[in-house]
Amino acid sequence: MGPIGLVDGRIIDLSEKIVEMEDRGYQFGDGVYEVTRIYNGRPFALRPHIDRLYHSLRGLRIPGVYTFDELAAFHERLIKESGLTSAAVYLQITRGVAPRYHGFPETTVPRLTMSIRPAKTNTELQASGAKAIYVPDERWLRCDIKSINLLGNILAKQAGKEAGAFEAVQVRGRIVTEGSSSNFFLVKDGVLWTHPVNNLILSGITRTLVIEKLAPQLGLPVIEKEFDRSFAFKADEIFLTGTTTEIMPLVLMDGDRVGDGKPGPVTRKLVAAYDELVAQECGSK
Amino acid sequence: MGPIGLVDGRIIDLSEKIVEMEDRGYQFGDGVYEVTRIYNGRPFALRPHIDRLYHSLRGLRIPGVYTFDELAAFHERLIKESGLTSAAVYLQITRGVAPRYHGFPETTVPRLTMSIRPAKTNTELQASGAKAIYVPDERWLRCDIKSINLLGNILAKQAGKEAGAFEAVQVRGRIVTEGSSSNFFLVKDGVLWTHPVNNLILSGITRTLVIEKLAPQLGLPVIEKEFDRSFAFKADEIFLTGTTTEIMPLVLMDGDRVGDGKPGPVTRKLVAAYDELVAQECGSK
Repeated sequence: MGPIGLVDGRIIDLSEKIVEMEDRGYQFGDGVYEVTRIYNGRPFALRPHIDRLYHSLRGLRIPGVYTFDELAAFHERLIKESGLTSAAVYLQITRGVAPRYHGFPETTVPRLTMSIRPAKTNTELQASGAKAIYVPDERWLRCDIKSINLLGNILAKQAGKEAGAFEAVQVRGRIVTEGSSSNFFLVKDGVLWTHPVNNLILSGITRTLVIEKLAPQLGLPVIEKEFDRSFAFKADEIFLTGTTTEIMPLVLMDGDRVGDGKPGPVTRKLVAAYDELVAQECGSK
Repeated sequence: MGPIGLVDGRIIDLSEKIVEMEDRGYQFGDGVYEVTRIYNGRPFALRPHIDRLYHSLRGLRIPGVYTFDELAAFHERLIKESGLTSAAVYLQITRGVAPRYHGFPETTVPRLTMSIRPAKTNTELQASGAKAIYVPDERWLRCDIKSINLLGNILAKQAGKEAGAFEAVQVRGRIVTEGSSSNFFLVKDGVLWTHPVNNLILSGITRTLVIEKLAPQLGLPVIEKEFDRSFAFKADEIFLTGTTTEIMPLVLMDGDRVGDGKPGPVTRKLVAAYDELVAQECGSK
């Protein structure tokens, strides 16, 4: 029992070779993906993840050949067969196999690959707060599609890793967009600020939960509006959101202390409210 | 005899499954590629292609584990075993297999995959001239790396295909950058203009041959400088360059005739000089 994969409905060992070299996912990054967290053996927020998957598929005009119920059943099988209860399920759909040519092939069969691996909340880092750096946002202009063209994100994350940081926060022009695998929020005078949903960021599931559920519940106003680094420099608190990141306080940005250098009260309330939300949906966290 | 592949030195059928789902090429597009034309059973301009491959590998910090001689030998084997004499060889190197995480893994073994497929010069279209459209350049800001993150290029090419065009020419802001799989040149008052080499375009091998060999040979000055669509609108001639595109006259841009709507004299001279260059290196074209 442990990490396993699933290809077109069949459980596999992750070391199995299951892809032809001319799968368009392999030659063009022509595919989309989702990552869903499993808590207490149950998927959290699976519905919005699959809704976003369909959005991404439409963006690339890859046929959506799997229903929500089928994909939910695949998640259940991976959880059951792996024996993992605290985990992350990765799901990818590529356009399929065709002789290499940039334009879409006339017909291909999209290929679904999935995996499950252990995952856990980084409670120590949530308590101490994490460090991040700013990097230039070099990605393409369709960041709203959760595609597997991730080189920009990879190079950003790697720069963060080499700086000893938890995350690299991307800046386009002077505007703070989002982390390499997370969304960016700041707190200023009791108000949450985050980049608006458009082609420059991914509409994160955790981001949406913060805006639509947790912030209203805690009476926190939210402003979805562009802001620059100098505004972020004056923030009282900063945090990241993401499916595996959950809600992560940032206490050091490019070497500058955020607020008093400790996770702030608003972020701590949001972390607690998120834990509660997970426990409600999954039985416990 | 016909299309075949090669993986890490072994000849394979292209339908063989040779990639694990956690190959970083498949989950992140974390890899680079080259395409080389074979004329008369011999590779054309192989050395600059492999030089550029190393440039791309350095850009992504993927170890360059194959020497020029090894890669040249693989090209020869594909040519010999396929029996193809007029062909294109595709070569890709990904960072290799590792549990999914954005940053670089500590150690991976890069994976080389190659294929050979028939290819031929589109002499009819070269004679009549081709049609292209303009599309917004939505790609990332490291287009100098010939990576397999090609979704921007794919969506552009597909838009061109649906408009009945041979190519989609990308425009960033007001600046004409390059085609979805080709470089863009225009001729104005006997001078060649093309976008300078920087992070916004790929330094094409055919582009370089035109600038460094063919233009000097024909006494044509070259200006490598940014220009906008309105300048391109006033061009006497326009052509594309690329390994499989070779030198392709454009006679219709977004529905507007270029010059008198026929391939112009400068482009026709360049096409003839290119054919001569290929014949010199490969024995015949």
